[in-house]
Amino acid sequence: MIASEKLNIIQKIRELKNLSGTHSPSIDTILKEIPQLKISIDACFLSNPYATELFIKYLDNDLIKKNRLRDILEFYPPQNYDVSCYISKATGLSPKNIFVGNGAIEAIQAIMHTFVRKKVCVIIPTFSSYYEFVRPDTDVIFYPLKKEDDFILDTNDFVQFVNDTKVDSIIIINPNNPNGGYLSKQDLEFLLESLKKLDNIIIDESFIHFAYENLELSQISSEELISKYNNLTIVKSMSKDFGIAGIRAGYAIMHEDRVKKLLSNGYLWNVSGLAAYFFQMYSNKEFLREYDIARKKYIMNTLMFLSEMKSIEGIKVYPSKANFALVEILSGQTSNEFTMNLLINNGIYIRDCSDKIGLEGHFVRIASRSFEENLSIISGIRKCMREKK
Amino acid sequence: MIASEKLNIIQKIRELKNLSGTHSPSIDTILKEIPQLKISIDACFLSNPYATELFIKYLDNDLIKKNRLRDILEFYPPQNYDVSCYISKATGLSPKNIFVGNGAIEAIQAIMHTFVRKKVCVIIPTFSSYYEFVRPDTDVIFYPLKKEDDFILDTNDFVQFVNDTKVDSIIIINPNNPNGGYLSKQDLEFLLESLKKLDNIIIDESFIHFAYENLELSQISSEELISKYNNLTIVKSMSKDFGIAGIRAGYAIMHEDRVKKLLSNGYLWNVSGLAAYFFQMYSNKEFLREYDIARKKYIMNTLMFLSEMKSIEGIKVYPSKANFALVEILSGQTSNEFTMNLLINNGIYIRDCSDKIGLEGHFVRIASRSFEENLSIISGIRKCMREKK
Repeated sequence: MIASEKLNIIQKIRELKNLSGTHSPSIDTILKEIPQLKISIDACFLSNPYATELFIKYLDNDLIKKNRLRDILEFYPPQNYDVSCYISKATGLSPKNIFVGNGAIEAIQAIMHTFVRKKVCVIIPTFSSYYEFVRPDTDVIFYPLKKEDDFILDTNDFVQFVNDTKVDSIIIINPNNPNGGYLSKQDLEFLLESLKKLDNIIIDESFIHFAYENLELSQISSEELISKYNNLTIVKSMSKDFGIAGIRAGYAIMHEDRVKKLLSNGYLWNVSGLAAYFFQMYSNKEFLREYDIARKKYIMNTLMFLSEMKSIEGIKVYPSKANFALVEILSGQTSNEFTMNLLINNGIYIRDCSDKIGLEGHFVRIASRSFEENLSIISGIRKCMREKK
Repeated sequence: MIASEKLNIIQKIRELKNLSGTHSPSIDTILKEIPQLKISIDACFLSNPYATELFIKYLDNDLIKKNRLRDILEFYPPQNYDVSCYISKATGLSPKNIFVGNGAIEAIQAIMHTFVRKKVCVIIPTFSSYYEFVRPDTDVIFYPLKKEDDFILDTNDFVQFVNDTKVDSIIIINPNNPNGGYLSKQDLEFLLESLKKLDNIIIDESFIHFAYENLELSQISSEELISKYNNLTIVKSMSKDFGIAGIRAGYAIMHEDRVKKLLSNGYLWNVSGLAAYFFQMYSNKEFLREYDIARKKYIMNTLMFLSEMKSIEGIKVYPSKANFALVEILSGQTSNEFTMNLLINNGIYIRDCSDKIGLEGHFVRIASRSFEENLSIISGIRKCMREKK
């Protein structure tokens, strides 16, 4: 590719990025606007491709082959409470504790607008919606993870900070996005015990299915803690674990009075027919058995991917128990230069983190994809590093 | 069916109704809970079945046969603003005036929570979400349509009422649900001119594609009025016109400052991949040409259906330009008895309106369905009337 064309593409991507706020432009948007660009791997996108395949297999058998797709498109979906009954069946929680969202992001928005009021503490770097979606009268206090601590949360220091700054709400993403830092269940319970007096402790478990505490890779869940802590809200995205971001399916678990308040004047039919179908699958034993294999396969993939990345000279891979890693470019390239090189010369799209508070400069986030794609990503990064030398 | 079994079903439906608030339990919920019930026609459900067929034909060709369904399920959908660009292409409006909703009901909720504050006037009978979704600090004033006027809105009287009660916001559904009363564009402009000083005039055009002002059955739209009246919001549901309630697709048109405010701290990815696909179709000329035939066919159907119903003794059919009619039972049966008879003896599900403010007692709403289904509904009603004699 000639240099002027390359510059042209870089400029165009910058414009698209500006239109997407603190999120990345989707690959679809990029390909529509810059058709001359060839993207072969979307390593910006955080979801389990094997789970997507599994869901599509079920959908094909249940809905398409049986000619039942029309029911899902034509009729009103079940109301919020009815869908929470499906989730109740899957989780054992009372439906009264479950607020179903049009994606986890709707649950986040509802919580931020309704229950978080005066002063909220957000750990950075983070997913930007957590500070962008607050009400205009809410103060946001940032607690920065330290680079020298490998962006791992020091729970004692954090509790001290929360007490000192007198915030009434805190948000924890576990594992955290964009670095993948993981808080064990024990650490989590320590925080919950120490911060009982807060109005809100919001834990976003969007990536929890990719984390593990033992070699069996058993699924981790904190859902049962809801009955013990009235101020706890757990946000669950189905987009990443189950690879179905396009369906918009998520939920949040919280005290029943809060669910009641949210449903009292809104959120009636906020779940589409397809999302309702997914939530029926969510308690289907056969589907879940197959899902757990897809989940473990993807974790093994990711483990190997992260370990290969760590062996590349010129980058630092921060500890992650999610399906991605925060990577620091030590070779002198900025994160933007590195991202553009990988995209334009290798067709690999990754997340430039330079717009993330606390990660200005040399950080990128790279997602784990399928086994074959991960191999291509590794060789693409190696190529970028060699060219730099 | 023996009497005790019948009573049993009536009791069970009453319980389901109680769980659904001021809406009807969906046919799906009913069939799941009362499997012994046979429902052959859902005349509670307000949507164009021919439009559903058309959409499914396109979806089948574009997504299923071409193996592109995965893209729509797996990846994040385009952001709110990107989808408003598709709608802009279809309507000629600026995307800055368009707020895309996860169904029209999300747009209604957003408007009620954000822009309607002190005192809102709701015309009754109406769709209950318009008074249920207000903020706790908003007063709702009801303006009752009069039975003796055939539930037709008297615009002069209404303007007087709005001025006298000093409300700051009003809501008009056009044609109105549940009676189908239609306000001509001329009447609408009279209201807009007379009530310029209000904060909000919200016009819900969920059923506008079923209305007509001439024999060509041309589509009616008030969308261009947005540029003239800063206080105007037009709510558009795609569920009824296009027969796709399960997808959750709707939007609202309003002043650009309001769209900006809504998008400033929420509603980022509130449209699913399938809804985004629909909105791409929304500006596809070939699809729209075929859609207009499906729309006109359904209107003709409905015209004949309403005219046949009017010939049945013992009921009164109120004037409607929507795809349903408000029907008063004059034979002495309550609306509940009539609804249960039609359901249990004839397998036809209609909307008992006894929970609607202003319609207690003897009113039901009956939807137009396909040509053949409409014939069965007519003969079912005739049978109910004969049995009563």
